Amino acid sequence: MSLIVQKFGGTSVANAELIMNAANIVTKAYNDGNDVVVVVSAQGDMTDQLIGRANKINSRGSKREMDVLLSAGEQISIALLSIAIEKLGYPVVSILGWQAGVMTNSNYGNAMIKKIEPDRIKKELDKKNIVVVAGFQGLNKYYDVTTLGRGGSDTSAVGIAASLNADICQIFTDVKGVFTADPRKVPSAFKINEISYDEMLELAALGAQVLNNRSVEIAKRHNVLVEVLSSFSGEPGTIVKEATNVEKMLISGVAKDDNIARISIIGIPDVMGWDFKIFSKLASKNINVDIILQSIGRDGTKDITFTVKDEQLEETVDLLNNYCQSLENVKISYDSHVSKISIVGAGIESHPEIAAKMFEALFSAQINIQMISTSEIKISVLIDQDKADKAVLVIHDAFFGPAV
Amino acid sequence: MSLIVQKFGGTSVANAELIMNAANIVTKAYNDGNDVVVVVSAQGDMTDQLIGRANKINSRGSKREMDVLLSAGEQISIALLSIAIEKLGYPVVSILGWQAGVMTNSNYGNAMIKKIEPDRIKKELDKKNIVVVAGFQGLNKYYDVTTLGRGGSDTSAVGIAASLNADICQIFTDVKGVFTADPRKVPSAFKINEISYDEMLELAALGAQVLNNRSVEIAKRHNVLVEVLSSFSGEPGTIVKEATNVEKMLISGVAKDDNIARISIIGIPDVMGWDFKIFSKLASKNINVDIILQSIGRDGTKDITFTVKDEQLEETVDLLNNYCQSLENVKISYDSHVSKISIVGAGIESHPEIAAKMFEALFSAQINIQMISTSEIKISVLIDQDKADKAVLVIHDAFFGPAV
Repeated sequence: MSLIVQKFGGTSVANAELIMNAANIVTKAYNDGNDVVVVVSAQGDMTDQLIGRANKINSRGSKREMDVLLSAGEQISIALLSIAIEKLGYPVVSILGWQAGVMTNSNYGNAMIKKIEPDRIKKELDKKNIVVVAGFQGLNKYYDVTTLGRGGSDTSAVGIAASLNADICQIFTDVKGVFTADPRKVPSAFKINEISYDEMLELAALGAQVLNNRSVEIAKRHNVLVEVLSSFSGEPGTIVKEATNVEKMLISGVAKDDNIARISIIGIPDVMGWDFKIFSKLASKNINVDIILQSIGRDGTKDITFTVKDEQLEETVDLLNNYCQSLENVKISYDSHVSKISIVGAGIESHPEIAAKMFEALFSAQINIQMISTSEIKISVLIDQDKADKAVLVIHDAFFGPAV
Repeated sequence: MSLIVQKFGGTSVANAELIMNAANIVTKAYNDGNDVVVVVSAQGDMTDQLIGRANKINSRGSKREMDVLLSAGEQISIALLSIAIEKLGYPVVSILGWQAGVMTNSNYGNAMIKKIEPDRIKKELDKKNIVVVAGFQGLNKYYDVTTLGRGGSDTSAVGIAASLNADICQIFTDVKGVFTADPRKVPSAFKINEISYDEMLELAALGAQVLNNRSVEIAKRHNVLVEVLSSFSGEPGTIVKEATNVEKMLISGVAKDDNIARISIIGIPDVMGWDFKIFSKLASKNINVDIILQSIGRDGTKDITFTVKDEQLEETVDLLNNYCQSLENVKISYDSHVSKISIVGAGIESHPEIAAKMFEALFSAQINIQMISTSEIKISVLIDQDKADKAVLVIHDAFFGPAV
């Protein structure tokens, strides 16, 4: 007998039929003799519906009140999934984030889980109940409801799995697992059977929106075995686990991120500490800088180029213009029409030919590389956005071979 | 400075515009220097929507899970009203039933408030916040969410007002107050300015659905001054308070209840204790018996006639048939096509001419009285349902004069 945490996303519980489908998956696991905890997101369009209702009244409602509003979405889901499980004749109890002991900080709208006290969940499992928990929500020290931000239900699920020392955390979604590239764009993309936490983290950060990044971090920290799988296919998905046990692949995926903009500061006087100051300035405004490239310019000046998320471009440029006002000859330029293409794989560090192969594939397709950034398990390049899909395709085929 | 509890029903917060209207009423009271606690119901059709979603999955979901589901309705309302109040620039905080300390028993779907511990509400009032509380919901001893059943938000509001020792509890609704009769049926009906708890209790029990009965009971027990008023007119409504301070009216209203059925057991052998047994049998099945009439029949037998709610007719008749199976010559008959017409008024006990006037009005209109029941402040008659509206009209006009 195992303890299984199963998480169903919004698309997996979007209507009555899908909820019954989820209930069937849950009760099958229970029937197989497992203890089952289920974590559920709000139904498909519920969150948007609720935001729509709010915006008609006040599009700038406080984050605290928006959390009260949005957390009603998961409350509805857990009740509906529970009555579906009741219909199948199984013992079930639904509990909200605060009942499940999900304690968070007070960053409303994007709260972080601080700890989970799963006493209530354990008590219900002892009674042989299937326990359906509202994802995405928690309680702060003021006893107020918080929400965990985008993908928060994944975080809830993995966090609860960690707190219960569960044998596996299954993340049910509308895709079959983690793919080597976006299968809608790359015909030869295939499902990865196993991937390490670190590779998954890089892929998640790169916009492969299968698993929320925080949830992978928690899984890694607490060594939670995670499976990403489809709630429709009934097939095994992708197992995310410790690197040492993972089936070795040189690279595990190619990912694209369009939500990125390049900013260059050109002609900076080469004075010590200038770059430190500018980046700490950006950090203080919560602007996340990604790839950074510094080059020596002419006449004792230097250039710095870096990337930020599209939505932070305007703010960043304003800030830089302000900051560089007093400096003669310093020029700010930017381009939001760029994409970051990355390959992720545990073998990258020990196989220098991987980078060469990637660059060669891009060269062959006449795609110009604007910037390069590497880590132990990742190589990212910045290219023109128009060529991004093509780039993913040629890189994927260079490593995995074209579709047959 | 006063402490005011304001309650807005579902029709008063049904859409964005109405929510802004409620926010204006609330902030006006706050602006006048009062501490303001607001209790809100689910938006107009929200409860039905949620039940619809549930029924598509399982029309027999457990009451516990239905309570989790339905309590999401008020959660949405409090958040929306709060962001409306934020838009008007006032400090506000929304809290759920469990945060407001509304402790109930575990009768899911129809829970009773056991006590209210308003520490959190007081803390927020001390911070000069407008406090918006989810009505209709509470917490039981298992730390599970419960709902209070039909009209439960009234109960929440009066209960919270009692726990805070509030100066007044204003119940905002879509009617202007308590009327002497249903104004849609009786043109001469008029709004009552003041009414006693007892009279209000009788009227509420008789189907004048302005105020939930339990809420009036709580108001009476804790001496909470209640005002029923329109959220649209801006005019004073009806004050419900202790009898000693109420402006004296001989009768305060005429009410009709169509949801009633008459059952007769004819030819019962006149043996001691038989009627006791039959009524305790009904009580054990939670069947509420209203008017009871016992008469001596022929040959040492007797007849018992009583009324029950329409929806309990079938169950009652089945029960009686079973129970009387062994008794020869006992006959059960019933009629659901009856109405109960009642007049309520503090003056009834001391003014016997009131009953005479009521019966005369019915006689003049050629309406036959099937049963009569009286209490200190109420006279009820059972008549044919087809003549019910006419009966209310002629009785009302007999006491208050016809419309001019």
